[in-house]
Amino acid sequence: MKAICINSEVVMHHYAGLNSIGSINADLKNGFLRAPYSEAESEAIAYIEQAAIDGGLLCRRDLAGNLIAETPGTFSEWVETGSHIDTVPGGGNFDGAAGVISGLEALLAIHHSGTALKRGLRLRVWRGEESATYGVTSIGSKAAFGALNPAALQQTYEGQSLAEAMREQGVDPETVRSGLAAMPDAERDGITAFLELHIEQGKVLETADTDIGIVSAIRGSKRSWITVSGTFDHSGATPMGVEFRQDANLAMAYMLVELDQLLHKANAEGVDLVQTSGLINPSAKENSPVPLLDNAVTKVSGAAHFSFEVRGCSAPKVDRYCDQAFEVIRETAARFGVSVEIDTFSDQAGIEELDSEIQRLLDTGCTKLGLSHLSLPSGAWHDAGTVAEQLKSNGSPIPVGMIFIPCRRGISHSPDELSSPEQITKGASLLATAMAEIASNYRWWWFYSPPK
Amino acid sequence: MKAICINSEVVMHHYAGLNSIGSINADLKNGFLRAPYSEAESEAIAYIEQAAIDGGLLCRRDLAGNLIAETPGTFSEWVETGSHIDTVPGGGNFDGAAGVISGLEALLAIHHSGTALKRGLRLRVWRGEESATYGVTSIGSKAAFGALNPAALQQTYEGQSLAEAMREQGVDPETVRSGLAAMPDAERDGITAFLELHIEQGKVLETADTDIGIVSAIRGSKRSWITVSGTFDHSGATPMGVEFRQDANLAMAYMLVELDQLLHKANAEGVDLVQTSGLINPSAKENSPVPLLDNAVTKVSGAAHFSFEVRGCSAPKVDRYCDQAFEVIRETAARFGVSVEIDTFSDQAGIEELDSEIQRLLDTGCTKLGLSHLSLPSGAWHDAGTVAEQLKSNGSPIPVGMIFIPCRRGISHSPDELSSPEQITKGASLLATAMAEIASNYRWWWFYSPPK
Repeated sequence: MKAICINSEVVMHHYAGLNSIGSINADLKNGFLRAPYSEAESEAIAYIEQAAIDGGLLCRRDLAGNLIAETPGTFSEWVETGSHIDTVPGGGNFDGAAGVISGLEALLAIHHSGTALKRGLRLRVWRGEESATYGVTSIGSKAAFGALNPAALQQTYEGQSLAEAMREQGVDPETVRSGLAAMPDAERDGITAFLELHIEQGKVLETADTDIGIVSAIRGSKRSWITVSGTFDHSGATPMGVEFRQDANLAMAYMLVELDQLLHKANAEGVDLVQTSGLINPSAKENSPVPLLDNAVTKVSGAAHFSFEVRGCSAPKVDRYCDQAFEVIRETAARFGVSVEIDTFSDQAGIEELDSEIQRLLDTGCTKLGLSHLSLPSGAWHDAGTVAEQLKSNGSPIPVGMIFIPCRRGISHSPDELSSPEQITKGASLLATAMAEIASNYRWWWFYSPPK
Repeated sequence: MKAICINSEVVMHHYAGLNSIGSINADLKNGFLRAPYSEAESEAIAYIEQAAIDGGLLCRRDLAGNLIAETPGTFSEWVETGSHIDTVPGGGNFDGAAGVISGLEALLAIHHSGTALKRGLRLRVWRGEESATYGVTSIGSKAAFGALNPAALQQTYEGQSLAEAMREQGVDPETVRSGLAAMPDAERDGITAFLELHIEQGKVLETADTDIGIVSAIRGSKRSWITVSGTFDHSGATPMGVEFRQDANLAMAYMLVELDQLLHKANAEGVDLVQTSGLINPSAKENSPVPLLDNAVTKVSGAAHFSFEVRGCSAPKVDRYCDQAFEVIRETAARFGVSVEIDTFSDQAGIEELDSEIQRLLDTGCTKLGLSHLSLPSGAWHDAGTVAEQLKSNGSPIPVGMIFIPCRRGISHSPDELSSPEQITKGASLLATAMAEIASNYRWWWFYSPPK
């Protein structure tokens, strides 16, 4: 394995270029707004395209408007990387952009290193990964594989439908509407490996003071609303005890504690799961199905409402755990004399294991480059997850790997999001080293495509 | 003891009169609005005044506008009853009104029964007991005793200050402003006993299928806001455990469960306390001191906020319990790595014991009238509590008793509030029987005012 090292100055140079595209204020204090299929996203993609062309790569777009930058030459197999360059409103310039810049510089570094390529190198800049605006995640990568639900075209942001936004940026939404893939099948079948570098969006690497996270799996999520109906009563005149009080808030508190204890038990048994109730009684944000506004300081509460999210890499394990959790919720409701409704409104299966051969290669690459590293699951969904869900014509999956780099205090989707040029450069060097190894070594061809 | 019985038809007659005063709709489906010192409250008082005059009582007003109806004759001691006739917006016509009607009919029944009175009988219709509009409870009764904080005059409802509302109803707010009692000291010193009949506003009597509640004490309340500050984090990328998550919502849930367990322990040790967290994360209702609106389904929550109300008859016991509860809250916060602020915004001491002699008399009266009865504390505050807080010139308290009657499903402050004419009549008969006994029996004079 040959080490390929990226220079941190080129990373800083690209940030100087991208920081002026889609930033809400010049001082970056309010972060960025590069919505999916917006002018700002197109400008950022054009910046990357120009830099790729300047570096000697060939560029084109797929039918979904995703940018493709490739090394010149004729290859039947390709080693790919990619990430996105859109942001949530008020987001930072690292979630997505760090992976795009690293991918671009990895391709250029390998291209200029004189490495003999047995496979071509390709960067994809996916459009519209963030769901904050249109409510749909990984729009561009899903569209590339024909995996985007056409109903997404009707989703609106600031009064404009996704279909209109696409059209404004020169993309015909008809491909999505008709359920066709924006990428030819042969191109998909020729992907030897797909790697994505991304900021961790968590504190594991920073806490462990570690350069690199080798992503083992990607957590899916199952999200439900739990709605508790009790009885409104006078807080002074109603004695304690379930005979007199059907207290929705109190029943909810017991549910949350019992769910926490259930999760501890599952974690102790080695099941990878995280669980969060981020919204409790969110009357201001949601049209609540129970009369939350009738709650008062001086009333036993008659209504409670909370979100319950479970994330895990194994969909069957998430489902099995949720079944147990829902049972705990129902039992607690019965104990407190309240009624409960459970409404699962979102269910995205995780990727139980990313390609193990790529994980081993990244491990070797870290050793080669002298980078500290650890293995961890990705808590957030990524375009790499969409790629990992796809099957080639022969029924085999596309081998996918992910590289995490640390980000300050785990913050993302915020103007405070930050990875240093050094942190990005270390990750980009690992990406380049791994891609060069796959592109130049026939073992990979053998491993995935045994000769007939 | 002589039984005095009230006719349920007179009660129904008065409801026919009062149901058209301050009702929001003619069909009563939206309840009543008789705000403190409003035209509607004045009209209702005028209705009672006319009925009292028609029955041969003498009427006058004190300087706070409270109505006083008395039996004719010269007495140095008076047996009193009283309640209020204002309502919360959308309230019913029983919370307060049932006590006023019962008091009026008790006086008339005794007056016309030929009972030889050693003491006079007096009905007080207190103004503005409900705090829902001006945020101050028992305005009229507090003002009568010079116990109303003059700051209350600046409180507003629908853009009008309490002082303005008083002036519009012919009451000079100067008495309150200067801290003077609206009732002469000699009148206060001449009160032998004060009794109030009120709907229970709870389900204890209905659940026990019992006619009468003899009130043993009045619960005070101590109300606090508990504000929890954690750290917002990505719900998927942040591992479980306090090392990574400072989850405000989860810490709050543990606090609520631990507080519930603390209360169970106190109750098991025989301390009369009830505890309620009616508002949890009430971002729509309150200007939250923490950024509740930044909470999201996909974030570990950084902010939580809940109300914590403890009610008990003994103020020292409420204080001691709250000290323990606050310690539990602080310990839980520390365990979850979140910070917590406790802001006690209201603290009304309870009445630890209502007059025991009156309780015994009411007990005897129930037996005499064949009414089932039980003893219970009042969970809500009442004008009777204000009276019980007062001291005569000789330093002794005014003896106070309360009679509770059942109300449907414990509902109050709602159009669904209801006590039947029979339920009211039973309570009114007990009130009349007890008042007649005190007014005609010298033992009471001896008990409270031993001859010099």
